[in-house]
Amino acid sequence: MTLPLITFSRRLRETPFTDRILAGGAQSFTVYNHTLLPSWFRSLEGDYWHLVEHVQVWDVSCERQVQLKGPDAEMLVQLMTPRDLSKAQPDQCFYVPICDERGHILNDPIAIKVDDDTWWLSLADSDIYLWAKGLALGKGLDVEIIRADVWPIAVQGPKAETLMARVFGDEVNSIRFFRYKRLEYRGHAFIVARSGWSGQGGFEIYIDDAELGQELWDELFVVGADLNVGHGCPNNIERMETGLLSFGSDMDYSHTPLQCGLDRYCQLDTDLQSMSIAALREQRAQGVPTRLVGIVAPGVPAASKYCQLLADGKPVGDITSQSLSGRYDAWIAFAYFESELIDRLKNESVKLQLLCNNELHDARYSEIPFKLGQMGLNERFPNL
Amino acid sequence: MTLPLITFSRRLRETPFTDRILAGGAQSFTVYNHTLLPSWFRSLEGDYWHLVEHVQVWDVSCERQVQLKGPDAEMLVQLMTPRDLSKAQPDQCFYVPICDERGHILNDPIAIKVDDDTWWLSLADSDIYLWAKGLALGKGLDVEIIRADVWPIAVQGPKAETLMARVFGDEVNSIRFFRYKRLEYRGHAFIVARSGWSGQGGFEIYIDDAELGQELWDELFVVGADLNVGHGCPNNIERMETGLLSFGSDMDYSHTPLQCGLDRYCQLDTDLQSMSIAALREQRAQGVPTRLVGIVAPGVPAASKYCQLLADGKPVGDITSQSLSGRYDAWIAFAYFESELIDRLKNESVKLQLLCNNELHDARYSEIPFKLGQMGLNERFPNL
Repeated sequence: MTLPLITFSRRLRETPFTDRILAGGAQSFTVYNHTLLPSWFRSLEGDYWHLVEHVQVWDVSCERQVQLKGPDAEMLVQLMTPRDLSKAQPDQCFYVPICDERGHILNDPIAIKVDDDTWWLSLADSDIYLWAKGLALGKGLDVEIIRADVWPIAVQGPKAETLMARVFGDEVNSIRFFRYKRLEYRGHAFIVARSGWSGQGGFEIYIDDAELGQELWDELFVVGADLNVGHGCPNNIERMETGLLSFGSDMDYSHTPLQCGLDRYCQLDTDLQSMSIAALREQRAQGVPTRLVGIVAPGVPAASKYCQLLADGKPVGDITSQSLSGRYDAWIAFAYFESELIDRLKNESVKLQLLCNNELHDARYSEIPFKLGQMGLNERFPNL
Repeated sequence: MTLPLITFSRRLRETPFTDRILAGGAQSFTVYNHTLLPSWFRSLEGDYWHLVEHVQVWDVSCERQVQLKGPDAEMLVQLMTPRDLSKAQPDQCFYVPICDERGHILNDPIAIKVDDDTWWLSLADSDIYLWAKGLALGKGLDVEIIRADVWPIAVQGPKAETLMARVFGDEVNSIRFFRYKRLEYRGHAFIVARSGWSGQGGFEIYIDDAELGQELWDELFVVGADLNVGHGCPNNIERMETGLLSFGSDMDYSHTPLQCGLDRYCQLDTDLQSMSIAALREQRAQGVPTRLVGIVAPGVPAASKYCQLLADGKPVGDITSQSLSGRYDAWIAFAYFESELIDRLKNESVKLQLLCNNELHDARYSEIPFKLGQMGLNERFPNL
C-alpha cells in the first residue's frame, strides 16, 4: 500500500517557514493546532542521529501563543493550572498542565511571563484560546485574550549554543534553563528561551516579525554550515528516550497530571486559587487508578500499532506511544497500567512480555524518563 | 518534488472506519478536529464525478459531537449563536454560526436538538468543547458538557435515498431536510438526518455504537453494489459549486457571519439572549468592511495558491478557497473583497481579472452560491 498523503489547504495554516522546510526536504507532516508541522526529513532514524550529534532548526510555529494581558491575566493563568505561579518572574517559562475542574488535562503549554500583566501560553494541540476566553467572559475577568502573531522556531542539538551565539552573541550563554532574554537581531528584540522539545539542549526563539524571522532562519543555516546545521523537527525517538510526553497521545482530556507523572507540577498543598486543586486532592486521597509508565523491550525489530503487552500471559496496558531506539537497540513505549499492576511489576512478582508481529519478547517496566544508559542495554553509535 | 505524506499518530484520532477507508483507497488525508479525514480516493475530479452521478459513503467522524445536557443546555446554545432557536423541536437540525462577544465566528456546527434538555453540536474544526465548558463553568450554568462517543457517517449523492431505504426502510423517504428520525438497524436506533456537506442530497447517520456502525458501513456497500456505491469524502469541487463554506478556510475567528453571507442565520431584530447580538447589530449599523464573494473565471487551466485577482489592474481580494469546475470549465473561488469594490463590481464600473500562472484571464463576480448553470458557461459531462 502506498503511504497516505496530506492535502494542504488554507484551514491547515502554513507558517512563515513552510516554503523553506519543503525546500529543505520535509517528507511528511502532521497537523498541530491547525498548523502544519513536519514529522521527518531524512527518515525518523536519520533525523534522530543528526539531532543528537549536530544542530537542527525547527519550525514549531504550531506552538501557537495565546496571550493573556490585563489586571486579571495572572489570576486566570493560575486558575487554569495547579502549578504554583505566585513567584513567577518576568523572565521565566513554566511547563504547566492546564486542568479543568475535574483535574483533567486540557493542554500542557509552556507559560511565559512576558511582562507583569502579560502571559503567553505556548500551546500543545488544543484550542486553549477558547477555554481561556470562555472562562474569562463567563467570570467577567479583566483580561484581553488574543492569539498573538508569533511563530516560534527551535534550535536544538549539542551544537545549538555555539550556533546561537554566532547570531545573537555571547549573551545566549547566560540564559538559564527555562529562562528567557530579549536578544537583538538586526535591531529587533526577540524573546529567546533556553527550552525546546528535546533533551539535546537548545533554544526557542519567539518570532514576532515574520519577515525578519525568515532572515534569521536563513542566517542560522549560513553561519552554521561548518556545524552541520540541518533541518529537523520534534523527533519521536529522541523525545521518548528523553521522556517527554506528547499531549494528545500520552495524555488527553481523560487523564489527570497525577496519572502521567506530572505530580511535581501540581502544588496540591499550597493554597492556590486553581480550579483543579480540589479534584486533584481528592484523587490523591482516593488513589490514582492508572498511571503512565515506561516499557523497554530489547531487540524488538519493528514497532506496530498492533503490539500488545502481556502480564503473566494476559493482555494489559494501553500503549500511547512507541518507538525503536537504535542507539539502545530496544523498543520503548509509554503505556497506562493499573496502579496495582505497577506495584507488582516493581516487586517483580509478575512477568511482562511484548507480543509484536507474532513474536514474544521479554519486556521491562521503567520509570519515565527511562534511564536507558543505566539499564544494561547495549549503546551503539553507527559511523555517520 | 514528491508530494508530502501524513504521519499517523495516536494524537490524530483514527475512527471506527479508518481501516475501511484505507482499504477502500483513500490516497490523501487532512486533519479535522484532531481526527483523520480523507480528502480524495480516485482523484479530486474522479471523486466529484462519482459523487454527482452515484452515491458515496463518507467517514465524517471528524464532526465531533459536543453534547450539552441539563436544565441550562438550551440557554447555553442560544448564548453561543445569534440564530433564534426558541422554536426548535426535538427532531430538528440547525446550521448555526457560533459567535463570540465581538460577533466573530468560532465554529459553524449543525446543532441538533436531541431531546428537550439535550443538544449536540456537530462540529467544524475547532474545540468548541472548551468554549462551551469555559462559558458554562464561568457562568455557573447547570449543564453537563461532554464529547459524546459518536462517529457520523454520511451517505451522499443522487442515489443516496434509494440506498438508505434499502437499509432503513421507506421511513427514510419521509425525513425532511434538516430533520432527523431515529431509525432502527439490527435493533439499535440511530439518529438519521437528511443533511450532509454536499448539494447532491443525502443523509448523515450518527453512529453511537462503533461495532454496529461498522456492520452498517459494510452493508451499505453490499446492498448498494448495483447503485455503484463508492467511497468518498467532502469534495472541494462539489462543495464550492454548491456554495458550502469551509470554516477555517472561508471564515475564521476574524470574520463575522455578516461578512460571509450568513446573515439569514442571525436574527438580529429578535430579543435573544445571545452574546454576539450586540456586536453584530453594531456592525450592521456601521457597515460591513469586507464580504465573501464568488469569483468565476472560465477556461483557466489550473489553480494555484499564487493566483491573484486584479481590479482595473490592481491586486484586490483575499482568496480563501479555489477549485476547477470541470463540469462548467471554469476556475471558481471564494474571496474577501472590500464592500465598496463589490458595489463597483455589481454596477460593472471596474474590470476584474485573474492572474494565474503568468496568464491573465477575465473573471466575473458572483453571489454565493454560484448559479453556474445560469451564467452562460458551457456545461459538460464526460462519458463515464
